[in-house]
Amino acid sequence: MTGKPLINADRLWTRLMALAEIGATPAGGVNRQALSDGEIAAWRRAIGWAREAGSTPSTDAAGNLFLTLAGRDRAAPPLLLGSHLDSQPTGGKFDGAAGVMAALEAVVSLAGQGDKPARDIVVVAWMNEEGSRFAPGMMGSEAFTGERDMDAIRAARDADGVSVGEALDRLHQAFPDMPRRSLGFAPGAYLELHIEQGPLLEAAGCTIGVVTGIQGKKTFQVVLEGAEGHAGTLAQQERRDALAAFARMATALHSEIGTIDADIKFTIGRIAVVPNAPSVVPSRVSFSIDLRHPDNAVLDAAGARINTLCREKAPPCSVTVTPLVDAPSNVFDSRLRASIAKAAREQGHPAMDILSAAGHDARHLAKICPAAMIFIPCRDGVSHVEHEWAEPDHVAAGASVLAQVLRELAYPPAAGA
Amino acid sequence: MTGKPLINADRLWTRLMALAEIGATPAGGVNRQALSDGEIAAWRRAIGWAREAGSTPSTDAAGNLFLTLAGRDRAAPPLLLGSHLDSQPTGGKFDGAAGVMAALEAVVSLAGQGDKPARDIVVVAWMNEEGSRFAPGMMGSEAFTGERDMDAIRAARDADGVSVGEALDRLHQAFPDMPRRSLGFAPGAYLELHIEQGPLLEAAGCTIGVVTGIQGKKTFQVVLEGAEGHAGTLAQQERRDALAAFARMATALHSEIGTIDADIKFTIGRIAVVPNAPSVVPSRVSFSIDLRHPDNAVLDAAGARINTLCREKAPPCSVTVTPLVDAPSNVFDSRLRASIAKAAREQGHPAMDILSAAGHDARHLAKICPAAMIFIPCRDGVSHVEHEWAEPDHVAAGASVLAQVLRELAYPPAAGA
Repeated sequence: MTGKPLINADRLWTRLMALAEIGATPAGGVNRQALSDGEIAAWRRAIGWAREAGSTPSTDAAGNLFLTLAGRDRAAPPLLLGSHLDSQPTGGKFDGAAGVMAALEAVVSLAGQGDKPARDIVVVAWMNEEGSRFAPGMMGSEAFTGERDMDAIRAARDADGVSVGEALDRLHQAFPDMPRRSLGFAPGAYLELHIEQGPLLEAAGCTIGVVTGIQGKKTFQVVLEGAEGHAGTLAQQERRDALAAFARMATALHSEIGTIDADIKFTIGRIAVVPNAPSVVPSRVSFSIDLRHPDNAVLDAAGARINTLCREKAPPCSVTVTPLVDAPSNVFDSRLRASIAKAAREQGHPAMDILSAAGHDARHLAKICPAAMIFIPCRDGVSHVEHEWAEPDHVAAGASVLAQVLRELAYPPAAGA
Repeated sequence: MTGKPLINADRLWTRLMALAEIGATPAGGVNRQALSDGEIAAWRRAIGWAREAGSTPSTDAAGNLFLTLAGRDRAAPPLLLGSHLDSQPTGGKFDGAAGVMAALEAVVSLAGQGDKPARDIVVVAWMNEEGSRFAPGMMGSEAFTGERDMDAIRAARDADGVSVGEALDRLHQAFPDMPRRSLGFAPGAYLELHIEQGPLLEAAGCTIGVVTGIQGKKTFQVVLEGAEGHAGTLAQQERRDALAAFARMATALHSEIGTIDADIKFTIGRIAVVPNAPSVVPSRVSFSIDLRHPDNAVLDAAGARINTLCREKAPPCSVTVTPLVDAPSNVFDSRLRASIAKAAREQGHPAMDILSAAGHDARHLAKICPAAMIFIPCRDGVSHVEHEWAEPDHVAAGASVLAQVLRELAYPPAAGA
């Protein structure tokens, strides 16, 4: 196989830029938050492009968009590929959108060959990956994989008091004739292309990242309770200073947990102090812990140690440690990863294995089917900013690798061939 | 001398309670902030009581109220005594008011004797001691002693945008016929009675505290600058985490400065973190330091060490340490302290030497004349709260001791007598 792309690079880039006009910000970014008018407009455009390839749209109770190209065996588990169309409020043109458009381009170019695929191919745009309008994110993929309950999802509200339920109903009313499929199905495989959102591919001069997995993440809320006192009168040894206890605790956590190995990520990012007045001994401190590691055994041990350290360092204050997120790291399907690496090699794109530090919908899909991700570089490693950028050649390379992996899945060699 | 008080205890208590009706809060406290309608009403009442004794009111550019009983030698430096009539927003009936009313009662009862004092006796109510409406506090006494410029004082604004200048003009317009004296004069002595605002007198069973001095205070604002980063992607060793640097710095400060001796008071009470988001490495932390000690040499050395420690612990972040308040401790006049102790002993009130942990206007007056303070107990040591309380007997004892010291100053024995 030569370096000739399996997709139409110009068409892909033109469509990606056209999509970026929906919710475009003056600074060159995109504000197209989940279930907004902008996302509805983006749906219409994606549906139009998909229809050209003979794909038909459908949705589900969670507001995921499916664009299905019918295969020969309609009962076989479909091949699923995509990402998300929602953005951060000051997001860029590529986060999510590049993955949906690359998937669509791969299907359109495949459909242009004329041969029906062995099974259905479904391009998906997951609802609310970003979690910026409605928290938390990844609602669509978590509903699809059964990890989160639809009632809980519908109850979440944005800053204006609009619930996900109301916004979902509005989305569905905008597409009154669109078939509604039941929530969740068993895909044959899931593929997602995404910008790296980090600096490693760029630094290594690689165009394709074969994502090995998504690092595990635990978060905690820690609350220290002491006692208020007058800064001028309360004797030092009688104080139960919650901020002093925080300082001891955070120092111990950073020095022990933050140095476990080169892969650990330990962050105390948010703190709130009561009463937070210069001449009053602080009575209460609450703070966040964000812990990440690719190895679940290390992650679990570090999480347990955090609990112990917090208890050890709290006196004379009391402490409560509440676990919030507990997302183990996952390893993507080895066969799909090998297919991605092979396609990159055959197409002449420098590639490397890479761990995803950020979360993606693929984390959830990997629980119900073989799943994998393709990363492409983004300039200076930055994302969630309006000047987020990926080179047209890199977008094309990623889509072409995605198309090759898709074709191998869609047209399997006959048994014994 | 017997235990018979030199003042009319019932009249003092009745007037103190009547004063507390001005700005009374439903929970039994007082909200009579600086230069408010409440303070204007309190002035009217105090002026009325002072006129009964033959005292005449005057004010100055700083909005201090002077109630002057003329002495035989009007050119001699007057005896000055008082406190403040403003309160915290949820303050009590005694903080400040007890000192003004005790001073007024001492003068009224002295005037009732008929003999003209050797020199003028001036009861003073200082403007804005509390600093709750307009920051910082002690504006009136600092303007009086020349420590703060009137332009700077007039420029300060409250939360509604009203300037001290506007509020002062309004106060003066409320008393159009009141003589205005030039700002500042040289008193012969200054005496101030105040509730202790701490638990020591109550614990020791003492009615009178002979205040030895006010402990010195330094405050600093420290700003740590690091670099923002993604909690999931930025390697630990590449981080410049401003909150981690704060934790190391605060731990070192608490463990070294906070343990200098039993008298040191070291407080980090307020902190602000940027961007203060759970998944972002903090880029900026600013925090307050409040340091107090009765010994200026210890205070200065601790202040210098704070500077050094902050610089040592900052890397890889940068740090700036800005000194704000630098108020050395003071020792009150030994002759006045001896007079207070003698009066307490002669009147049969148990007394003890006591250091003031909180600041008072007397701190500033001590720079320009012999000054001293008398403390009386307050229940459970609490102040700046609506249930702040002092026993009527203790208020009377304090006022009676104050009256005796005043009489000794007002009627000095003839030379050679």
